Amino acid sequence: MTLPIVKPLDRAAEPGLRALLDGKAKPPGALGRIEDLALQLALIQGRPDPKVERALLLVFAGDHGLTAEGVSSYPASVTTAMVATFLAGKASANAFARAAGAEVRVVDAGVAADLAPHPALVDAKVRAGTRNAAVEPAMTAQETAQAMARGAEIAATCVADGVDVLALGEMGIGNTASAALLMHRLAPAPLQACVGRGAGHDDAGLARKLAVLERAAGRSDATSPLEVMAQFGGCEIAMMAGAVLGAASAGGVVLVDGFISTAAALAAIRLQPAAQAHCVFSHASAESGHALMLQALGADPLLDLGLRLGEGTGALLALPLLRAATRLLSDVASLDDVLAGRL
Amino acid sequence: MTLPIVKPLDRAAEPGLRALLDGKAKPPGALGRIEDLALQLALIQGRPDPKVERALLLVFAGDHGLTAEGVSSYPASVTTAMVATFLAGKASANAFARAAGAEVRVVDAGVAADLAPHPALVDAKVRAGTRNAAVEPAMTAQETAQAMARGAEIAATCVADGVDVLALGEMGIGNTASAALLMHRLAPAPLQACVGRGAGHDDAGLARKLAVLERAAGRSDATSPLEVMAQFGGCEIAMMAGAVLGAASAGGVVLVDGFISTAAALAAIRLQPAAQAHCVFSHASAESGHALMLQALGADPLLDLGLRLGEGTGALLALPLLRAATRLLSDVASLDDVLAGRL
Repeated sequence: MTLPIVKPLDRAAEPGLRALLDGKAKPPGALGRIEDLALQLALIQGRPDPKVERALLLVFAGDHGLTAEGVSSYPASVTTAMVATFLAGKASANAFARAAGAEVRVVDAGVAADLAPHPALVDAKVRAGTRNAAVEPAMTAQETAQAMARGAEIAATCVADGVDVLALGEMGIGNTASAALLMHRLAPAPLQACVGRGAGHDDAGLARKLAVLERAAGRSDATSPLEVMAQFGGCEIAMMAGAVLGAASAGGVVLVDGFISTAAALAAIRLQPAAQAHCVFSHASAESGHALMLQALGADPLLDLGLRLGEGTGALLALPLLRAATRLLSDVASLDDVLAGRL
Repeated sequence: MTLPIVKPLDRAAEPGLRALLDGKAKPPGALGRIEDLALQLALIQGRPDPKVERALLLVFAGDHGLTAEGVSSYPASVTTAMVATFLAGKASANAFARAAGAEVRVVDAGVAADLAPHPALVDAKVRAGTRNAAVEPAMTAQETAQAMARGAEIAATCVADGVDVLALGEMGIGNTASAALLMHRLAPAPLQACVGRGAGHDDAGLARKLAVLERAAGRSDATSPLEVMAQFGGCEIAMMAGAVLGAASAGGVVLVDGFISTAAALAAIRLQPAAQAHCVFSHASAESGHALMLQALGADPLLDLGLRLGEGTGALLALPLLRAATRLLSDVASLDDVLAGRL
């Protein structure tokens, strides 16, 4: 159960790629973020004509012992019900995947129910929900390592199988609470700045959530990524963190979703900073801590649409921007050719 | 040459549609702007399952007499060269259209060159470039009316032919100068707040552009949309304004691009405010006046990617969000069904 090593991105081609982009039939820089994205994709894939043909969303699912403390406005059983919805193709993530031309698979990282086998379900269950992090570590060091290694393996296999872009989404009632604790220690940031309304807390619910998380945080002063993940993480978040490392080590593009997905990426990046160059941050979530977490990473997300669902929905909405970026490199004439009439 | 009348959107279905969206398998409002977009599309199309199958980008092209004053950092001949590039399928707009599954047609509204016939070129030339607005009105009232009526007719025909979303892009060296003058009078806003770097002015170029536009503005105190359009507009901008009215009157969805496209929409909306409900504002441009122009319309664009190219590129990047929004309505189960296991 070792984690793969992410090598720093080779940036030797960057000046040439920038010149290629500047020379396209448009004023230099006129396509803003799309030009930066094209550059990043080309560098990750190590080719001047990167491609985003196969895109896959992995929805990592897990339950959280913290839900016993009332940290979520939804009952924990919704995790299992939503897994069934993904598998039936009827969740928002499926809808957006269809719109964007992406596949969806669900990874059972730690759902607190026995799930029937399904062609789109990867059984990678570490345990049936985490322990209650308000009173004890959510996972053992062993479980954490297992989750991360399994995530890395799954993601690396996807990239090896030809997935050009791996989008990381999640489902887990209570997981904004877990992600807030990870952010608190790994960003780091004051706990209060990390805690938000999640799926829909009112002021009283938010205050209760903060009080629970203060208790959890008070139990351990862990600050190293693996320890923090064991203390406060979720099976699905640990597995996503592993997936970031697995995909990045295999040379893949990782499309990060919202608050929880970013918390997983944060843990991966704190472990191996080289992983960040492989990450595209898709959107700024409406979950209140997300902006600060992105800032802690120096990450500037592509979209800002007031999303706060998770599942990978924001990643899927950003996916077409990646496809467009590759088309800029492959399909657009140079200004020289345009002015010389060489079309 | 009369303009079609846009009827106010029937909002009777709004509460029902909002309840439908709230009842989907997600926390109410958790998909933010995408939910609002789904609602807007459903209201425009008058059905709970709006569709965005056929999308068409019309690139309105025209030249500007103002270029004689050095308002652009590119020579006017680039307009014609870029029209050839669109027709060859090698401009950024073509690349993004391919990525987004949209068709592209070019409308010659007023290019200062004879263009050879092409299946993707609509000949609607009003005149071979506008007059120099720094010294005389850019167009006569008659030319303005002709451009707008022709744009309306083209757009209405597209909608009648089954185009679900009509994206409005443009090509015209010098047209940020023209759009700045339109904004100045129609937003309205101080001229200085409307003038930006366009395709890439340095500080000296920007100062020169502002001085030229001050001269132009000093020639006429017009404030009515049609007069302002005749004084300062471009053939392509007038035709786009007409296209907004034509598409809206036919019940179509108009996808507005950047600074120039928004200036055209502004003129259309100042003429017929009911047209705005049919407009989706795709992105906030890097052109400095765009944010203020959007604010004058109370419009909140979907994307903010630092684009400043035009052509319809920003509209095409936003198009997948519209497709995703329709999928939310058509493909996602209700939370009641999920919780009852009815999948």
